[in-house]
Amino acid sequence: MQNIKEYVEANKQRFLDELFDLLRLPSVSADPKFKGDVEKTAEFVAQKLREAGADNVEVCPTAGNPIVYGEKIIDPALPTVLTYGHYDVQPADPYELWDTPPFEPTVRDGKIYARGSADDKGQFYMHVKAFEYMIKNDALACNIKFMIEGEEEVGSVNLGTFVKENTERLKADVIVISDTSMISMAQPSLETGLRGLSYVEVEVTGPNRDLHSGVYGGAVANPATILAKLIASLHDENNHIAIPGFYDDVVELTAEERKALNEAPFDIEEYKTDLGIQNIWGEKGFTTLERTGIRPTLEVNGIWGGYIGEGAKTVLPSKANAKISMRLVPNQNSHRITELFKKHFESIAPDYVKVEVKPHHGGEPVVTPTDSVAYKAAEKALHDTFGVKPIPTRGGGSIPIVALFEEVLGLKTVLLGFGLDSDNLHSPNEKYGIENYLMGISTIPLFHKYYAELSK
Amino acid sequence: MQNIKEYVEANKQRFLDELFDLLRLPSVSADPKFKGDVEKTAEFVAQKLREAGADNVEVCPTAGNPIVYGEKIIDPALPTVLTYGHYDVQPADPYELWDTPPFEPTVRDGKIYARGSADDKGQFYMHVKAFEYMIKNDALACNIKFMIEGEEEVGSVNLGTFVKENTERLKADVIVISDTSMISMAQPSLETGLRGLSYVEVEVTGPNRDLHSGVYGGAVANPATILAKLIASLHDENNHIAIPGFYDDVVELTAEERKALNEAPFDIEEYKTDLGIQNIWGEKGFTTLERTGIRPTLEVNGIWGGYIGEGAKTVLPSKANAKISMRLVPNQNSHRITELFKKHFESIAPDYVKVEVKPHHGGEPVVTPTDSVAYKAAEKALHDTFGVKPIPTRGGGSIPIVALFEEVLGLKTVLLGFGLDSDNLHSPNEKYGIENYLMGISTIPLFHKYYAELSK
Repeated sequence: MQNIKEYVEANKQRFLDELFDLLRLPSVSADPKFKGDVEKTAEFVAQKLREAGADNVEVCPTAGNPIVYGEKIIDPALPTVLTYGHYDVQPADPYELWDTPPFEPTVRDGKIYARGSADDKGQFYMHVKAFEYMIKNDALACNIKFMIEGEEEVGSVNLGTFVKENTERLKADVIVISDTSMISMAQPSLETGLRGLSYVEVEVTGPNRDLHSGVYGGAVANPATILAKLIASLHDENNHIAIPGFYDDVVELTAEERKALNEAPFDIEEYKTDLGIQNIWGEKGFTTLERTGIRPTLEVNGIWGGYIGEGAKTVLPSKANAKISMRLVPNQNSHRITELFKKHFESIAPDYVKVEVKPHHGGEPVVTPTDSVAYKAAEKALHDTFGVKPIPTRGGGSIPIVALFEEVLGLKTVLLGFGLDSDNLHSPNEKYGIENYLMGISTIPLFHKYYAELSK
Repeated sequence: MQNIKEYVEANKQRFLDELFDLLRLPSVSADPKFKGDVEKTAEFVAQKLREAGADNVEVCPTAGNPIVYGEKIIDPALPTVLTYGHYDVQPADPYELWDTPPFEPTVRDGKIYARGSADDKGQFYMHVKAFEYMIKNDALACNIKFMIEGEEEVGSVNLGTFVKENTERLKADVIVISDTSMISMAQPSLETGLRGLSYVEVEVTGPNRDLHSGVYGGAVANPATILAKLIASLHDENNHIAIPGFYDDVVELTAEERKALNEAPFDIEEYKTDLGIQNIWGEKGFTTLERTGIRPTLEVNGIWGGYIGEGAKTVLPSKANAKISMRLVPNQNSHRITELFKKHFESIAPDYVKVEVKPHHGGEPVVTPTDSVAYKAAEKALHDTFGVKPIPTRGGGSIPIVALFEEVLGLKTVLLGFGLDSDNLHSPNEKYGIENYLMGISTIPLFHKYYAELSK
């Protein structure tokens, strides 16, 4: 029996080639024009699970994009690990800001540049390759199930139904997800909290048509100006979110918890240099780690209205729009927050415009325990691979489905992520380190081994 | 000798066919991709001037789009009328809001729907056809010169140089321009004031790349949010423009002048119904006619930033932009106002973003006299055609070149416009009444006749 490090070393090039094939499929879930590619990607994932040795592999249709399922049950007496991941990716726009094409993976300085390299293709595929190793070397320590979905980037709209309809098939002892970041290669970490999400689109309508700004300007409300005023009012002068009731359910951390959180290595000067900013911004009374980890936020993800082409057009637009998302923390509820936003936004709109708030999708915040068998197994596995004990962190991202897993399946999740914050997730030039990918593959069998041992 | 009404009746279909050919040429000056069409349009105009009987017709090159010149000097002792117009048009975006294609003129309910039908192809072409009549019927009462340019919609950037280099060729006694509106077909009017223009583009830059809004949101300033705050601050709670010094040079009208201005027929309920708005908006202390006629304004013509495609993308954008224009009144100066805007906008930008203000183009406000021979000739001509004496109005639009004509050529302008405010200038479904077009052609020879008579 080959050990995992040797196996990874021997199969390195093939592991990369397979991931590159996966990254070449533009499985953008937000844009219907990629529908065909999304389906091809699901088939690709299913095929790779079969080749690795999974049983009962199925591309399960949903009302949206399919979910790929596969399993290997070696002994009903052993614990079962359910691996969740997503094969869909964020849109790659703006394409012109990519140094190399988003769907043609390119290696530079040991990093794989491609949309989805870190989020989440490069990360869930580590589990497929680790599984291959465990099968081929008779090293499976737990039963294993895979559930790889295709709608994570659009709010996992159909996964809830699938989970509810398949509680028997998805029966397990723990869920493992690799879709988060570590502090650095020198300091591994485990995320223990995920924020929830409420995503809305707003439309402000003024006159029933675009108008000549000379003939009507100054006498008819300009929806772009009014939208700007409405957005400006959503944060107060301390950058608190000015929606009545928004903070009502927020769990405040104890002084001790905040102290522990702020002990994670963080260099504000490096942070500013990396982002090219002269100064940071954020809610008064909180540090940067707190602002992104334990506080809810409200961000404009997109805004548009009027003439946005070359040159000048003197138009008073009929409509202006924005996409706005809020990250939520325990115990905020995404439905309640979406409702509060809608009510507030409609209430502050003046009568010379009409506003419409359309909810996109949401997800609930979650905190994962650090005293569980799964957490301890992950801690031990990372310690073995990196030689350093990982520390718990609170990440700012959202994997809305984690709360649902807990509710419907009664399962806790361990967030065994190998990415880095600098991976440009959701941005041009997304990347994932080859070393991160290979060390992830090496770590996963250890997690399974320790999880089985500690569960005894 | 046929009288003008008979001539128009006899040639009506040909007049429309020729205008339609002109409207089919997409001479959009703001977008470089229409460069070839712009040049074709200049050639078309030159050819039609030649066919109508003009001498010395020339498509004069400039650093930008060409200017078409033509003339007919019958007697140096007679007064000379210089006709100005523009063959370029506004962009037609958003195309999807047009009921019929913008460059395929279509008649519905007696209106010609096409980009440029009213602004300004349909209006300057009336002068070409009126000229044809006067030539064919030996009815020229004045010498006539034509100067039809191709950059009015982008600030007439090269016309100034042309005018300065051609003061001898452009020598005249008065300038006539048909590029404005009348109150209605039942109540003709003559515009006696045009607003100036200062047009800028602003860019707000936050981080050096698009960021994941979960990982960085709440801790790094979002340029879309900051742009919204900056735009929101440009009008105070009374909708006064909050740029220090902005109103310093504004000439306030006397109570009497304001009273006269407000006597123009105006029905606020009709106005709201036409625009589909529940309420009007504007600077406190002024009526709608004053807001669009004698007060300066600031409008957002376009705004964009972040993800504006289908679906949801959780991005914290690197940049957000806006196009902003200000309409100016006597005695504001566009260069000074652009400078004030730039200085103010830069001064209010917080240090966690960078802002850049790029001036687009400008033009000076102008007031035309109502006691001149030209005004009286126009008044008489309109009275003859419509059977009602026209009233003077102050329009909100800008023809920046009018101030330049006065400065360089020492010439006053008469604004003999036949459009209507409801013509959807700069908007989808721009239109121009067939009746407006034909009555305009009928009125112009009368203007020349009365101008010659009153000049004696």
